[in-house]
Amino acid sequence: MTNKIPRDNKNDYSSAIISQRQGFLEEKTGATLSHTKSFSFDPESMEGNCEHLFGVAQLPIGVAGPLLVNGEHAQGEFYVPMATIEGTLVASYNRGMRVIRESGGVTTTVVGEAMQRAPVFLFRNARDARDFGHWLTANFAAIKAQAEATTSVGKLLEIEQYCVHNMVYTRFDYSTGDAAGQNMTGKATYAACEWIRTQCPALRSYGLSGGMDTEKRTSFVNSLKGRGRKVTAEITIPRQVLQDVLRVSPEHMHISYNVSTLAAFLTGASNNAAHPANGLAALFMATGQDMANIGEANQCSVYNYVTSDGDLYYSITLPALIMATYGGGTSLSTQRECLELMGCYGQDKAYKLLEIAAGLTVAGELSLVAAAQRDKETGANEWVDAHEKLGRNR
Amino acid sequence: MTNKIPRDNKNDYSSAIISQRQGFLEEKTGATLSHTKSFSFDPESMEGNCEHLFGVAQLPIGVAGPLLVNGEHAQGEFYVPMATIEGTLVASYNRGMRVIRESGGVTTTVVGEAMQRAPVFLFRNARDARDFGHWLTANFAAIKAQAEATTSVGKLLEIEQYCVHNMVYTRFDYSTGDAAGQNMTGKATYAACEWIRTQCPALRSYGLSGGMDTEKRTSFVNSLKGRGRKVTAEITIPRQVLQDVLRVSPEHMHISYNVSTLAAFLTGASNNAAHPANGLAALFMATGQDMANIGEANQCSVYNYVTSDGDLYYSITLPALIMATYGGGTSLSTQRECLELMGCYGQDKAYKLLEIAAGLTVAGELSLVAAAQRDKETGANEWVDAHEKLGRNR
Amino acid sequence: MTNKIPRDNKNDYSSAIISQRQGFLEEKTGATLSHTKSFSFDPESMEGNCEHLFGVAQLPIGVAGPLLVNGEHAQGEFYVPMATIEGTLVASYNRGMRVIRESGGVTTTVVGEAMQRAPVFLFRNARDARDFGHWLTANFAAIKAQAEATTSVGKLLEIEQYCVHNMVYTRFDYSTGDAAGQNMTGKATYAACEWIRTQCPALRSYGLSGGMDTEKRTSFVNSLKGRGRKVTAEITIPRQVLQDVLRVSPEHMHISYNVSTLAAFLTGASNNAAHPANGLAALFMATGQDMANIGEANQCSVYNYVTSDGDLYYSITLPALIMATYGGGTSLSTQRECLELMGCYGQDKAYKLLEIAAGLTVAGELSLVAAAQRDKETGANEWVDAHEKLGRNR
Amino acid sequence: MTNKIPRDNKNDYSSAIISQRQGFLEEKTGATLSHTKSFSFDPESMEGNCEHLFGVAQLPIGVAGPLLVNGEHAQGEFYVPMATIEGTLVASYNRGMRVIRESGGVTTTVVGEAMQRAPVFLFRNARDARDFGHWLTANFAAIKAQAEATTSVGKLLEIEQYCVHNMVYTRFDYSTGDAAGQNMTGKATYAACEWIRTQCPALRSYGLSGGMDTEKRTSFVNSLKGRGRKVTAEITIPRQVLQDVLRVSPEHMHISYNVSTLAAFLTGASNNAAHPANGLAALFMATGQDMANIGEANQCSVYNYVTSDGDLYYSITLPALIMATYGGGTSLSTQRECLELMGCYGQDKAYKLLEIAAGLTVAGELSLVAAAQRDKETGANEWVDAHEKLGRNR
Repeated sequence: MTNKIPRDNKNDYSSAIISQRQGFLEEKTGATLSHTKSFSFDPESMEGNCEHLFGVAQLPIGVAGPLLVNGEHAQGEFYVPMATIEGTLVASYNRGMRVIRESGGVTTTVVGEAMQRAPVFLFRNARDARDFGHWLTANFAAIKAQAEATTSVGKLLEIEQYCVHNMVYTRFDYSTGDAAGQNMTGKATYAACEWIRTQCPALRSYGLSGGMDTEKRTSFVNSLKGRGRKVTAEITIPRQVLQDVLRVSPEHMHISYNVSTLAAFLTGASNNAAHPANGLAALFMATGQDMANIGEANQCSVYNYVTSDGDLYYSITLPALIMATYGGGTSLSTQRECLELMGCYGQDKAYKLLEIAAGLTVAGELSLVAAAQRDKETGANEWVDAHEKLGRNR
Repeated sequence: MTNKIPRDNKNDYSSAIISQRQGFLEEKTGATLSHTKSFSFDPESMEGNCEHLFGVAQLPIGVAGPLLVNGEHAQGEFYVPMATIEGTLVASYNRGMRVIRESGGVTTTVVGEAMQRAPVFLFRNARDARDFGHWLTANFAAIKAQAEATTSVGKLLEIEQYCVHNMVYTRFDYSTGDAAGQNMTGKATYAACEWIRTQCPALRSYGLSGGMDTEKRTSFVNSLKGRGRKVTAEITIPRQVLQDVLRVSPEHMHISYNVSTLAAFLTGASNNAAHPANGLAALFMATGQDMANIGEANQCSVYNYVTSDGDLYYSITLPALIMATYGGGTSLSTQRECLELMGCYGQDKAYKLLEIAAGLTVAGELSLVAAAQRDKETGANEWVDAHEKLGRNR
Repeated sequence: MTNKIPRDNKNDYSSAIISQRQGFLEEKTGATLSHTKSFSFDPESMEGNCEHLFGVAQLPIGVAGPLLVNGEHAQGEFYVPMATIEGTLVASYNRGMRVIRESGGVTTTVVGEAMQRAPVFLFRNARDARDFGHWLTANFAAIKAQAEATTSVGKLLEIEQYCVHNMVYTRFDYSTGDAAGQNMTGKATYAACEWIRTQCPALRSYGLSGGMDTEKRTSFVNSLKGRGRKVTAEITIPRQVLQDVLRVSPEHMHISYNVSTLAAFLTGASNNAAHPANGLAALFMATGQDMANIGEANQCSVYNYVTSDGDLYYSITLPALIMATYGGGTSLSTQRECLELMGCYGQDKAYKLLEIAAGLTVAGELSLVAAAQRDKETGANEWVDAHEKLGRNR
Repeated sequence: MTNKIPRDNKNDYSSAIISQRQGFLEEKTGATLSHTKSFSFDPESMEGNCEHLFGVAQLPIGVAGPLLVNGEHAQGEFYVPMATIEGTLVASYNRGMRVIRESGGVTTTVVGEAMQRAPVFLFRNARDARDFGHWLTANFAAIKAQAEATTSVGKLLEIEQYCVHNMVYTRFDYSTGDAAGQNMTGKATYAACEWIRTQCPALRSYGLSGGMDTEKRTSFVNSLKGRGRKVTAEITIPRQVLQDVLRVSPEHMHISYNVSTLAAFLTGASNNAAHPANGLAALFMATGQDMANIGEANQCSVYNYVTSDGDLYYSITLPALIMATYGGGTSLSTQRECLELMGCYGQDKAYKLLEIAAGLTVAGELSLVAAAQRDKETGANEWVDAHEKLGRNR
């Protein structure tokens, strides 16, 4: 028997070919696929999302909420679907949402937008490279026209330039509407580069992916300039609420922040928070986002201080949050339903979803950071205990 | 009607309460949950994995392969289940696997292991902190005994110390068998810290989570010291194979590497690769791994050079790969089946799975990096084209 | 006897008070100041450069050269004064200059300019901060006018904005003529900030030094955006020259680069070079530059590859080179003479000096990197040997 | 006339050859060397410190003090010589020393020591590399013996290993007595490597300078593991002293710290301080240290908080402070005198000098940070003003 995975070049999403692949895999590996075969979606709907389809991954979804959001796009209470297999995670976020509700809600703001493609342009020497940089600046309007001719949605906002050696690394920054925009910006930038190529005799070659977008990874350029959308969620938590719900003082929260931030600084960590990736991953999975973007979404900074009133100002800024409410995996079966749970499916909903996502991370951070507090006096360490009780022993 | 999510404190995983939550959410939000209700797993089995369970996220799984692995634990051909909604992803990894097969397989090695907990110890001044560091070193055996008394599996390998100001940040490094080990190490470290507390009068207080583990995020300390397991996958690709399958020369691959690595260095990026997070996320989702770990798993370095024979040596080292084959989400319905597809379910399989995962990233990198090549002469840019053909327009 | 350092508030630079201070120090400490008293400069000329003057540091100056520079501002051969106490340093740079001469010179280009002040603006919340960012953009012309009113030389080129939490960190980027410009930009930015304060009711407060300039230290923002001047020096070294003078092949140089760059990437180092700080420090000391700027000047990237002709392209980009030819310490006795040695004293000479400095680093890198080569076959390791012969045993 | 710098291969430090070089330079460049010729030291004494000697750099030295140090090695009041051309610098440090005195002194502690050489070892594949790592650990005693046979002072403390791809990067960590130790450790490591080469057949080649020491630059590995000596200086400043001398409150100092530290974290800066490089550079120049080490010495972290008594705890940790009191440039004319001013010349004085240096940076930071405070209410901004009054207009 061949080792080649069965494939139907005419229609690779028919029940027949899927069944054939399942049989092939079971025979080849000795495994039994029972639950993996149990999907309720129409396999044909997966064309464009998953090649060599043979089954389904079923991930449990829990709900946390309501999350009270004072956003510009998300306003009111939301029930947030979280697909996860990590025990205590939903419970922990749920607890944080109580803190938020009792503090009057989390305020969310989309503060920036820039999805990138990052071509690099190669020259004979640094002078040609520098001069090309000036040319890029002078011809921005024309380049923008070339790029935008390929898309009805994307807008070229800026071309960042980083001239090094005989090269100019760039970041073409776009706004992308409700889509995450990686493909849209790829097409637009390719068109722009091809046009640039015809205009610049000094250009020796270019690479469409020069690496400065640092796609799907963290970097200092993304923390500074952003990627996708940059969103801030902030809250002022009354001292009494902190003490009643999380049994911690504002000063304690600040000391913990102070120590963690120093650790993050000393290690060059991609965030100085606790675990924003937890909640984001659960929301991303439930709502059909590209899971690989967790690689960059978990870059963030948190910031807090005790206010002059003795309360705690707490803020998180996520500079590289990439989420969509339209296209990609968002229209698939359960994914769309979960977006609809929050009124976030379809066009003109991306900012709303981003605000909910940012608010969600605040809930998780407050709950987790407070739980992790411990000192000699109190003897309490909720966080380890919580895992003992609710989580499975690993 | 109340805003409170229905909950049954006796048994929150019965059909009744799940159904009640579904009704509550549909009524509250106006959404219809149809596919989300269609799970084949036993909801009771989700206790310890997901609170407030109300449904399922269905993610399509495609298969890529066979992946030919020359590991110490994984040997032979593997069919890799990839849960993803990103069009072209499975196809791209599949293409990379062909390169690997035609090159005789990818060689994989688990080169290190260290799961951390990272308490911070606070003192009156730097001298007390420094002296505590000496004490830690001198009392390692006793501390190790305290920590290991809490677990039958975990072994305390080392206590890294970073003395700064009046504090000693530490990383307690463990081996954790087949589990990812975050909870196991949490318990062990807590026990050790409590014992330390009784022994060190100069200790003023400690925090169990000092931040130096940089859990679920990338950092330079993790790239250097590792977290979870550190795995290298390497391959020497004959010039002819590169040219036949990927239409690229070893020199071209190296130039591209050279340019990308400089970009990664200049931006402080968490990897100098293309998109290892893509394949890892798909494999993590299929096999019940903690998706938030993608935040740290995507930290890596790649390295290549043209050999004296004119072939391409290519290597990827993933310093913070956290995967389990036992406990956590691995025993759930579809997750277990997908692990079984690769013979990776259960005890003594973690290193095998890690080797397959590392090999998988090589497939993706080779395919993607080659596709992203472009220069003035050839005019070809497969990568944008590929998305046009197979992917949905976003 | 009092512990207070003698001081003459009317004229603290007279021979009398200097002598009094010398006596005070000798008496207080038991040290004898003999050479330290032997300065040839007029102490009065030190007003504005050094308070509590009591003597001179005498540092030996050697000369390396000629350095053949193909710059836009520096053209021809230069004899470079290097003040240093590190044995072998001048000899090593001298050897690198031979490589440069035999390769036809080093090509230097000032590719960018931006001296910063970096105020941070604080707001009630992220929305006010974001809106302030838009206001800054819209009012750039007016702010520029305010800033430039304070200086006849400085020009405000750009205001970089980094909106995080309820703050907007900025970098006010200036061109500064022949001066290093830290003070000039401080005054201009203060004036701009004071005007902004009157215009923005939402502004709660601001700090003139928000920290994003990362003055006198390295950072990723400086490596990307530059500070002071960004200068590239590049050279294509014929294979034969490399082999004759440095006994190393282009391939060997590239492998060494490849390994070093990976180390720099993995550690988040501020450069992937060998020791550019060596030559820069020696030149800075000889020419009256602010030595603390070595802290940022040593940030750089090097880049090399074997050309299609089999030669070595080598380049260094220094993104944060801060040097002056006018004002500050440049007009002092020996400092001015050393600048004059290179025709670099006075106005309109800064770019010339920067080009020489960048070319100098290439000489040092080529010499040192080649010397550090070693492999199993050759057995040679010139670098350790060189220190044995010329340097003092330490 | 030839372009070749005159050189006497028998004795290149005689008055005759120096005079000949001066004449050559004056003739070649048209410059007049007057002050540059005025050195009081014996040129022959410069052999081993500076090749192609032709003159002297005269840098003014001011004195700040007394600095009250509560160290383990430096105890009491010290007058600190600062060679600088930056106006206001000595005055600023002097002001900070007053704060220190009124607070009872700065407490200093050398918390760690490790001078590195960082060879990299290359293998056929990752498995050989990993196994070599185990071999290194098992054979540490023998390697240590080989290394220490080359030096009467240096002790090999640890070999850090970083296994990546088919390589093992290492850091050989030594204690080096009173010397900075770069040469001593170079010799010792070379000997160790040569021995390793004979013992390890799997070793393909090695490079003595693999780059992980990040010599003369900053890096995260140095901030974590240290290089040279790691020194902490800390102080608790009474609220009243802060307000009287610096006109700032503890809370204000902490807010400023909070904002600056976030900026440092976001930019991956090498320190979150103000300008420790200023004072260090001035002290390094006065005392014959290697000025290029400012490149790494300016890496540090500061930390502060308001104590429960309402005072300010302030600390600075310098992880890579490289200073010597013996050998190198320390025995030269003015350099030795300046060391003697502090009782720091000769053997067994290195820790004393390091403690003074660390204490010095605290003086500068306190003065500068306080001066940079500004808010809407007070209207005061001393820092710009100070430069206006004392500094030269640039």
